[in-house]
This record gives sequence, C-alpha cells and structure tokens, in this order.
Amino acid sequence: MDVQIINEARKLCESIIIQAGHLAKSKFDNYNSLEMKDEFGDVITEVDHLTEQLIVNAILTAFPDHQIHSEEIGDLGVPSEWLWLIDPLDGTNNFVIGLPVFSTSITLMYRFEPVLGVIYESMTERLFIAEKDSGATCNGLPMIVTNNTKLFKGNIGWIQGHKVQNEETAVRLRHYIDVKFKRMLRLWAPTLQWCMLAKGDLDGIVLYNSEGDDLYSGILMVKEAGGIVIDFEGNDFIGMNNEPYLIACHPDHKDDLLRVVNEGLR
Amino acid sequence: MDVQIINEARKLCESIIIQAGHLAKSKFDNYNSLEMKDEFGDVITEVDHLTEQLIVNAILTAFPDHQIHSEEIGDLGVPSEWLWLIDPLDGTNNFVIGLPVFSTSITLMYRFEPVLGVIYESMTERLFIAEKDSGATCNGLPMIVTNNTKLFKGNIGWIQGHKVQNEETAVRLRHYIDVKFKRMLRLWAPTLQWCMLAKGDLDGIVLYNSEGDDLYSGILMVKEAGGIVIDFEGNDFIGMNNEPYLIACHPDHKDDLLRVVNEGLR
Repeated sequence: MDVQIINEARKLCESIIIQAGHLAKSKFDNYNSLEMKDEFGDVITEVDHLTEQLIVNAILTAFPDHQIHSEEIGDLGVPSEWLWLIDPLDGTNNFVIGLPVFSTSITLMYRFEPVLGVIYESMTERLFIAEKDSGATCNGLPMIVTNNTKLFKGNIGWIQGHKVQNEETAVRLRHYIDVKFKRMLRLWAPTLQWCMLAKGDLDGIVLYNSEGDDLYSGILMVKEAGGIVIDFEGNDFIGMNNEPYLIACHPDHKDDLLRVVNEGLR
Repeated sequence: MDVQIINEARKLCESIIIQAGHLAKSKFDNYNSLEMKDEFGDVITEVDHLTEQLIVNAILTAFPDHQIHSEEIGDLGVPSEWLWLIDPLDGTNNFVIGLPVFSTSITLMYRFEPVLGVIYESMTERLFIAEKDSGATCNGLPMIVTNNTKLFKGNIGWIQGHKVQNEETAVRLRHYIDVKFKRMLRLWAPTLQWCMLAKGDLDGIVLYNSEGDDLYSGILMVKEAGGIVIDFEGNDFIGMNNEPYLIACHPDHKDDLLRVVNEGLR
C-alpha cells in the first residue's frame, strides 16, 4: 500500500467534496428533475448527477489507473487494487423533502479494505475524514466513540436496505430496538449515522442488510474513532460483504448490544 | 380580536425569532451546560435558556398586558385573552447530538385559539409564518398541503409525548404506521414536522398524546396551508387540549389516514 497515494487522495477529496457539498446546499429546497430510482420509492435528483460528475471527473483525471464505482453511474476506470466508492448524495430522500440531513461520501479501498473515508455534510459544514491507522477527525478535531451514556438510555442508529422495509425479521428487530433504547434514529442518511457514532453523538448502530457505496467510509470512520464493527455473531467485520448485518459501538457496549440484537431476531 | 395587535406581534416575532435562531446556530456543536430535564431523558442546554430569555423579554416589553407561557420558565405576564406560547428550542434532543433539526417556535393565542404562529429553523434559515385566515408562508412564499403523492407511498410524521414511549397502544400504533407507509419520520422536533406538512414535504402527521408549547403554531401552519387537523374520531380539532390525539393531512387523505390509525389502535 502506497502512503503517497493515500495522501494525494485525501487532498483531492478534501477539495472536491466541499465543492460538491456547496453545489448540493445551493440546490436545497430548489432542485430540479426528480426521478424515481426503483420500485421501493428511492429517488434521484439533478444534484445526485451533478455532484457525481464533479467527483468522478476529478478522480479519473488524478488517478487514471484506479477503479471507480459510483452510485448512479456504476463502474468506471480500469481494474486495480485501488477502488473508489462514491455516494454523491447520501440522503436523497431527505434532500427532496427539505430535511437538511444529507452528505457526500468518498471511500478509497485498497484490496477490498477501506483506507480513506471522506464525508462532507454541507448543511453543517462538517468535513469528516478517516484514514487507516491514523484516526478520524471532524473539521480537524479528533473523534472518539464514547461509552459515556448508559446504553439503554442512549441513541441507537438503525440502518437498513430499502428492500427489507417490510421483511418480517427486519421489522421484528427494528421494532424491538425501537422500544429497548431511549431513542432509535433512522435517518435515511447512513454515512451521517456512522459519523455521529464516531463523534460520540450516537451510542450504537444496527445495520440490517444494507450495502452500498455509502457503507465503507462510515465503517472506517467508526473503527478509526475507537469503535468496533461486528456481525450478528459477534465476529469482527472486515473486507466487503454485499449483504451485511452489522453492529457498531464502543467496545464496552459490545456484549449488551449483541445480546439485544439477538433477542430481537428471535 | 384586534388585527393591529396581530400585526405588531408578527413584526416582533420576525425580528426576535431570527435573533434567537442565530444564537442557537452559533452554539451548534459547541454548547455548554447540559441538564437532564426529567426521568424520560429529555434534556436542556444553555441555548434553551438564552433564547427563551431573549424572546420572553421582548414580549414582556412590547405587550406588558399579555399572558406568556414558555417551555422552561413557565407562566409570566398577567391574565389576558392574549396568550403567548414559546418553545425556545424545539428539538433540543437533536441539538445535543449534533443533528441539525431544531427550531424556535412562538404562538400567539386569542381566547385559546392560535391566531399567529412563527417558527424559525436556523440551520436552513427558513422562517415559517401562519396568520389566522391569512395563509401560511415559508420565507414569504405561500405554503400548500399537497395530495400529490399516493398516501401509502408517502411520508408520515409521527409525534408523541415522551411519557408514552413504551405505552402499549402508542407502540402498537407507531409500529403499525411504520410498516404501512413508505416512510414514517419521527424527528423529535414537532414544529418542523408541522411545517413540512404545511409545505407539502410530508403527507400526513399522527400525533399521540403530545401537548406542549410547540403544538399550536404547527396546527395553525397546517390549517392555513389548507390541511385538516382532526382527532382520532374524525372531528375537527379546535381550541386547546392537554392530551391531544391528532391526525393532520390534505382533506383528500382524511378517510384513508383515519382508517389506518383506527386499525393501528385496535
């Protein structure tokens, strides 16, 4: 793994993601061309396309020998050990109803492991960066996953794939978690939930079969902020998985959160 | 009812609520002195107190012969047909976890009916104003409740009192609604959900026993934007009620939403 590449990638991301964010913010409450993306009600706006073009072009120019996967465009570039994952507008469903909870996410993977995650939340002007083995920051300040709150008085983020909204087990687990904690947040903007956990603002995340270009920057963010990311059996999650079931939290909360999830699954 | 009073009240609100909002925004991710408000986990920050003081002082000075009820301070002023309801920071639980979904709300009641509602969302700089029989606006543009979306493919806002989080009927209804629509939003910032419905960004609201200083500005906002507000029996909601159970939506969606709620209650 070439550290120089990661340094260059981070500088590129910092600049391009803030441009993309400003574009999104300028179109907030003022966007055009809404399309339905699929039968599950997911939507796309011009902003998804415009920000994607901006980011993809910058990466193609700077790293022509890398591979890219972007949410709307799909695959680009050439086969490589370096893979860029781009979610140009995570939280589009919020964006279109004027809810200021959305972000842009860029992840750089090396041999299927995230090595750089950059997330920008334009409405609050927060830039989140995680670099493998170098920690995670919000606007330059280190982030740390906390155990300050008693878990059951805490805030748990729920993330699920659109396709499992009414799947029996998904519903049972979601509703179990909803009554077990002070608050279950389901923001429909996964990257920001990972950032909130990394920053100490959430106390845990339960993710039910939701893979995508929005996943790996967030996982790196939480791991680099001292959190754990495990599957529903309690094993550390590494690499990529196209049907992930995950728990993330402070290491001290691992046993309790794992137990509650398995109670909810039964 | 004195129209002159309402005009003066609106001008005062517009100026003072934006000041309060700027104060809140300046403390976002940067606040002090968190206290627990009650055993249900509700919280207070310095921002609740500072914005409340700002607003209460302005009203006391301009309308010394009116009555005031403010969320943290309680009752002020003198008995009057004019009652001001103030929620200095609706969404404090979001504010403290860095979720940019909160507002300030001021309502003027005349003989227990809202005649002026002013809500400011500082993170998006949106000023919502509703005046009895004069319509509702967002930053000066008229708002209209819509029936553009098929109800069951729509977004329904859920609002409940903190004390009923685990009440059996509340949980049953909440979970029923959660699976019946594309999305149930539970933002913990009721005033903004009312504004989203008024603006055409939500398709309905179900409110389960949640009264407070945050309620009546929102109700006026929706009614003045062409929506209906009814109880669980389908009767128009008027006046005040300290244990309200409400449905709000476009008139065309009344029958369907009322039916679903009553299915969920059984």
